[in-house]
This record gives sequence, C-alpha cells and structure tokens, in this order.
Amino acid sequence: MQDTPPAAAMPAAVTPADALFRPRSIAVIGASSDATRIGGRPIDYTLRAGYTGALYPVNPRGGELQGLRAHASVADIPGSVDLALIALPADAAVQAVEDCIAKGVRAIAMFSAGFAEVSAAGREQQDRMRDRCRAAGVLLLGPNCLGFMNIGAGVMLTFSTVLENIWPKPGRVSMVSQSGAVGAYSAALAMERGIGLDKWVTTGNEADIDVARCIEWLADEPDTGPIMAYLEGCKDMGRLRTALEKAASRGKPVLMLKPGSSPEGMQAITAHTGSDAGDEAAYARLFRETGALRMQSMEQQVDTAYAFANGVFPRSRRIATISISGGVGVLMADAAARAGLKLPTPPAAVQQQIKALIPFSSPFNPYDVTAQIINDMGLFNRILALVAAQDEVDTVFIFLLQLGKVDSHFLGFRDALLEARRQHPHKLFVLCGGYSPNNRASMEAAGFLVFEEPVRAVQTVASLVPPGADDPSGR
Amino acid sequence: MQDTPPAAAMPAAVTPADALFRPRSIAVIGASSDATRIGGRPIDYTLRAGYTGALYPVNPRGGELQGLRAHASVADIPGSVDLALIALPADAAVQAVEDCIAKGVRAIAMFSAGFAEVSAAGREQQDRMRDRCRAAGVLLLGPNCLGFMNIGAGVMLTFSTVLENIWPKPGRVSMVSQSGAVGAYSAALAMERGIGLDKWVTTGNEADIDVARCIEWLADEPDTGPIMAYLEGCKDMGRLRTALEKAASRGKPVLMLKPGSSPEGMQAITAHTGSDAGDEAAYARLFRETGALRMQSMEQQVDTAYAFANGVFPRSRRIATISISGGVGVLMADAAARAGLKLPTPPAAVQQQIKALIPFSSPFNPYDVTAQIINDMGLFNRILALVAAQDEVDTVFIFLLQLGKVDSHFLGFRDALLEARRQHPHKLFVLCGGYSPNNRASMEAAGFLVFEEPVRAVQTVASLVPPGADDPSGR
Repeated sequence: MQDTPPAAAMPAAVTPADALFRPRSIAVIGASSDATRIGGRPIDYTLRAGYTGALYPVNPRGGELQGLRAHASVADIPGSVDLALIALPADAAVQAVEDCIAKGVRAIAMFSAGFAEVSAAGREQQDRMRDRCRAAGVLLLGPNCLGFMNIGAGVMLTFSTVLENIWPKPGRVSMVSQSGAVGAYSAALAMERGIGLDKWVTTGNEADIDVARCIEWLADEPDTGPIMAYLEGCKDMGRLRTALEKAASRGKPVLMLKPGSSPEGMQAITAHTGSDAGDEAAYARLFRETGALRMQSMEQQVDTAYAFANGVFPRSRRIATISISGGVGVLMADAAARAGLKLPTPPAAVQQQIKALIPFSSPFNPYDVTAQIINDMGLFNRILALVAAQDEVDTVFIFLLQLGKVDSHFLGFRDALLEARRQHPHKLFVLCGGYSPNNRASMEAAGFLVFEEPVRAVQTVASLVPPGADDPSGR
Repeated sequence: MQDTPPAAAMPAAVTPADALFRPRSIAVIGASSDATRIGGRPIDYTLRAGYTGALYPVNPRGGELQGLRAHASVADIPGSVDLALIALPADAAVQAVEDCIAKGVRAIAMFSAGFAEVSAAGREQQDRMRDRCRAAGVLLLGPNCLGFMNIGAGVMLTFSTVLENIWPKPGRVSMVSQSGAVGAYSAALAMERGIGLDKWVTTGNEADIDVARCIEWLADEPDTGPIMAYLEGCKDMGRLRTALEKAASRGKPVLMLKPGSSPEGMQAITAHTGSDAGDEAAYARLFRETGALRMQSMEQQVDTAYAFANGVFPRSRRIATISISGGVGVLMADAAARAGLKLPTPPAAVQQQIKALIPFSSPFNPYDVTAQIINDMGLFNRILALVAAQDEVDTVFIFLLQLGKVDSHFLGFRDALLEARRQHPHKLFVLCGGYSPNNRASMEAAGFLVFEEPVRAVQTVASLVPPGADDPSGR
C-alpha cells in the first residue's frame, strides 16, 4: 500500500481557478477500487498522470484502494483538502457537500446526476446545495458533469471512457463544454489530431460554475491559447460577454460551438436541458461583436483549434499556393475565393525566374510546379524560396501529393521548407497532402500546419486572419 | 524468367470500353526494368495485381525485364496486342503510335508529356496523332495522363506513386479525372477511407477520350456504382450532357468536382490547361438538370461516394437520431435543419414506451438515451427497435461515443443493430462515433455507414436522398 503523498507540492490556492485547476490535495468521495467504475476512473487516471499532490480516496470501508490508503470519511483525512470530487448518488452527494464544507475544501466537482435535469424537486435540491456552497465560499462544478482535467498538472478528475482509448498530451488548447459527451468526444478528436491540451472542463447542470465563467478563467490561464467552447444556453449573457471580451483582449480565440441556429436545434436544446436555448439573434450578435468564431461541427472546431494553436497568424488575406498538381491548385484557388482569401499575381521578375526554372510550369499564383520536381526537388526548393520571399504573400500553401510519406522524397524538400520558415517567421506555411506520422510530427514541431485535404486546409486557415487585416489598398 | 502468359484469358474486345478496360494483352512501350520508373511501375503494379492476360514489355534492349521476356519492338511481339501503353518522350511516342497502328492494337494509353500542354507545335503534333488513331479506329487515352486502372481485372496501367503507399481493393466506386494528380490523390483518400474501387481513369490532354466519354462508359459498366469525376473544362457540352443523362438513367450518381466557380479558379484553369474554363452558369445548369452532384472538395467527394456505394438510399428526408449525448443530438438536429432533413416527432405511444424504459431520457427526436445505457445496453437496444420501426423515419443516425472501440461495449449493441437492419432493409442506418477498424469493417460489410463525425455524417447523407423524395403532405 502506497503512502499518501505529502500535500505541499502545489502552490497555495489563491484564486477560484487555482482551487479547481491547481489543488494541492484532492479527496475522491465515493472512491472505487475498480478502475473502470465512475468512482474509480478519476483515481486511476490521476495516478497514471503522475499528479504530485495528495490524493485521498474516501470510502466507508476504508482500507486500501488502488494502492492508496482510503479514508472512511472526509473528516478522517489527516491533512487539508483543496478540492473534493464527489461521485455518489444525489442524496448522498448532498450530505457529502456538508462534510466538505465542514472540512474546509475550496472547490467541489460533482459527477452526481439526479438534480435539476430530472425534476423540479431535484432543481430545488440543487439550488439549496449551490446556496450552501456559495455561503461557505466553496466553488461547485456540476452536478451532472463529466468532471475536468488540468493535463499539465496531472489532475484528471473525469470518468470519461475516452481516456481508455487515447491519452492527452500537454499543449495549448483548452476546452469547456456544457455537455460532457460533446466535451469528451471533441477531446478525443483533438487528441487523434495530435493536439496538445491544457485545461478541459465540463459544466453539466451549471449550478454555480458555467461556461462563461470557465472562459473567463481560461482567458487568464497562461498556458492556454485557443479556447474550444460548447454552449447550449447561457443564463447570464452579460457574464458571457465579459468572458468573451476578456479572451479577445488576451488574444485568445474562442471557437464557439453553440447549436440552436435552427428551430429544430432549439427544440432539441429545450428537450435536453429543460432550459431555453435563448435568442439566436442575440447570440449571433454577441459572438460577432466579441470576435468569437462560430463553429458548425466538432470537426471544424478541432481543425480550427489546431490551426490557432500553432501560434502564427497571417497578417493579411493574401496567400500563395504551390502545387505539384495544377488541378489541386485550381481547387485551392476556388476554395480561397469562397473563403475571401486573395491570390496576388507575382511581380514580372518572379514570373521570369520561375519560368526559367520550369519552362512548362505556371509562374502565376496558384503556382503549378508540375511533376517534374519529383526528378529534381531543387526546382521546387528554389521556387518555394521565391514565392515565400514575396512581400505580398503572408500564407503559403504547399501541396506535394503523398511525397511526405516517403522519406527519400521528403528529405529532398524538408530543408528548403525549414529554411523558408526560418527566413519568414511571421508567415504561415501550410503543408497539404500525405505525410507519414513522423514527418508530420517533425514539421508540426517546426511550426508548420499539416492538413491532409487541401480545400479543408484553405477553409480552416481563412479563419486565422484577423478581421480587417488587409490594408484597404488591397496591396 | 517467366514465360509470357497465354493471351486468351480475357473475353474478346467488342466495345471501345472493352479495349481499354478488358485487354487480353498489353504491350508496355518504353518498359523499364526499374519498378520505380515511369516505364517500370505499371508492369510492377500489374504483375502484383495478378493480371491474367498477356503482358509484353517493349524495350530496344530486349532480354528479361521484371521477370518477363522483353521485346525489342511492338512488331516483334508474337501474339496480338489489344492495348498499348506508351511511356516514351513525345517524339518517340509519336513513332510508337505508328508501330501500334501497324500491329493492330485497339487502344493506346499515353503517359508522354510535351504535347498540347507545352506549345502550339505540340498541339499540332497531338492533333495529327489523334487523327491517325481515329482513322485507324484506335482509341487514344492521353497524352500527358497518369493512365488508368481496372482494379478487378488487375489492369494497373499507371505510374502514380500513390500505389506505393496503399493498394486498392475492388469495389463499386469508379473515378475519372482530367488531372492525374487529383485523380491519384482522390483515389488515395478513397482507399484510406476503405472504399473499394472499380475503374480509375485519368484523361490528361484529352486528345481523343475525354471525361464525358469515360462517364458514358462507366454508366454502362455493370460493376460501377457511384462515379467520381474531376473536370476542369469540357470541349463538348452536348456530349457531357448525354453522358450525365445516361448515368442518371442507370441510377448512377455522378459526384462532380468542377472547379472554376470563382474568377480566381477560372483564371487558374486557363493557366493550368491553356483552355477556357467555360461558362460557369452553363455548367451549373447542366449539373442541376442532369442530377450531377456538385462537390467542393476531394474529401466531400470521397465521403459522398462512400455513402452512395453502400447502396441503400433513404426514401425521404425524414430522419431520426439516437444519441448517448443530448448535446451531440442537438448538433445533429442543427445540421439536419441546415441540410433540409426533417426530424419527425414520434407517436405518443412510442414516446410513452421510451419514457418507460429510461425515465430521464428525451423521448422525442433527436432521441437522447443518456449515459445510463452504458450500464444496461438492453435499454438502447429496445429504443433502437422502437425508433427504427417508425414508418415516418427512413434514416436512423446512431451516436454512441467511442463505445464501438471497446469490444465489451460493442458486443452489447451489435446484434440489435444487425437485427434492426435485417428488419428494415430499405432504411439507412448510419453509425457515428469511434469504432475500432475491425468493428467498423464488420458493420460496413453488414450495410451500415460509419462516420467519425456526426455533423459530417448528416451533411453527407443528406445528398443521398433523391430530389422530391418526400411526399407533399410531409408525412
């Protein structure tokens, strides 16, 4: 049996976000020795993640539990407890809240269902519980939520089964979701896309903490970049506006998945949460005014977060595409036009230089370098340098079929890409096409975006350009 | 050295499509002993595919080549030759055409570049070559194309490098592309999606055979279902109309990727092919009138082909969604509304039955079966049967997070899905969410569509419903 680790490893909780994200000690109330149960998974995950604070399982039977000493009650825990996770049925959960308040915990996360989502009596019970927490100065996340994670700190307080299939790596994208399943599935899609995650929060019934408040916290989290949000309805539009404005002021894009743009969707929200989906026009106006980007699918949200997490933002809507295939260049040009991007024509001198390198290529934008480059990658490398150096261009898309899957080809153009990136650190380079997992990861680490489908790449990257980024002269 | 196989294994060529797709014998002129060269890959691929006809490499040096006896010239080949593949520089290719005509070949596929795409003189040479072929009654595919494949027959006459990374399996989707690279990359995406392919043709400079003519042939190919087409410009809109009408009359959807809907795209097409992109309004009208579905990306085209290849087409725009997550149900409802799909409200009796099974679920459409089903899959199975049996519903979407990745969960609902499919063979069942490769393949084989992203599933499936499929009463 492992001894409970010391409780002094984490900094003192000083803000509400600290209490949730950086607890020095965690009690899991309703802890299970079975690592596949709701009360067992958070312990298993947190142990596997190497959490360095104190982890106290609470179970009336006491004894040993997943290698930790279990305590019969919260009161029995020897040290102080910053955060309590409650994984009990509703009635027992209400009593556990009282125990937590008596113990002096700073924050509670509650999985328990059976409150406002099931009946008016449940709502009243939830409201009383919230009032008790507020009076005691204790944060309450949930109830009826899937918990939360601070990936970098190893705080994995969720029972989502997604972590059985894939494990998050630390990174800059944070997520907050009113729906546990949407949050879990979006996280799975993001992890499969290779995206590193910072914080992940599900808010469930939102007795106290809601999506707006989480966005406000995340705006202040130094390790968080893009914020993925899923919101069905917000009770306090003023707080949501404050949160979105704060994120915008910190330069953090909020990628907002807010269904209910159709009457069918609004009805479904009412059926799902029992709450009003609100006024779609008011949400649309709020998002427009605060610069939150409206998403239509989890896939689009994940793609966009991936692009923003890279950290290079084009300064204008002017792009160039270099393609081994004239046809793919044409498809990208169409997609660029639909997305409001511009393809500036190169200066005559550049046209002549390209024409001198590949007589039968198209020296215009989109640039068609033809399959000839397969036999002489130096041609591509020189054209890339010419195109990347143009002042008129802030984003360069490169499509080389599946050459990135074959190392003998890849090594022929990798260094030229890295050099272009080094020479032009403020420009965005987007690789489209097939890359092996290793080659993909190495190029991503070097600051490139990699998309398998060129049209999807163009559509996604278009949302990175700040509104009004182009000078009016249309340089 | 392997003996040249006998030339009588294939049926006699009787139609132009037979000459191309079902040659009893193939000469590869400009054959290389190096399986990675342009003149070597088609031989390597065709041998690996188990082509049962006669394969004759032609190379002035004679001797052995990739295990086959090489012939110094076409004239030296002992038997008759149905099809000749020419992989030589332009001038030599022109001479080879004369040799082929003298030998009595029925069709020629030509990789060679350096014709109409490079100069006026090249265009004249190409026109003369075409006229010679026409006068002799010989089909000419290309020049400047990536060749073609008849996957089921093992005829793999392409030098695309894509086959180095992934190998096609026989199936019902055929593809024709004016651009070799678009054709190759779309094929790669389709293969990665697990789609089986029938015929694959790239038309290049289209001296003789164009995309329209290939569509017409594919409309008659018994093994072809959906037809993916990439078209930059068509010289004969009348022939294209005839082809699209023929495909429609055979019930074969044409999924048309035709760029040039923007001025930028049209300019790029002119730069790429030297030809006019044509009148966008005329193409849009033609596609609308013939029922060709306009695609915007290779990814969308592949997704749609995947859905059509399944062979079950919903009879109406009325769908139901069953989701373990209320939030995902809401997202699907929004997507359905955007795509013009309807979510009928269930009869009161069905509502009561569902409510009796899961008191806290939403007994309406979208159906929210809640995470409770994880503990009792029988609840999901009974609700699935109730929903699938509704006359009002022709497509059922099912979202179960990533339960399909874990066999212990998957086995809890697999049989209920199979039973629903058996009971309602005319309805379409769409699984959304995460499935292991094995579970995915087994469900696809059983007639289910599987999509990872629910919104993308809804968007794609909407295009399967024939126009006007709903009765005016909106049943």
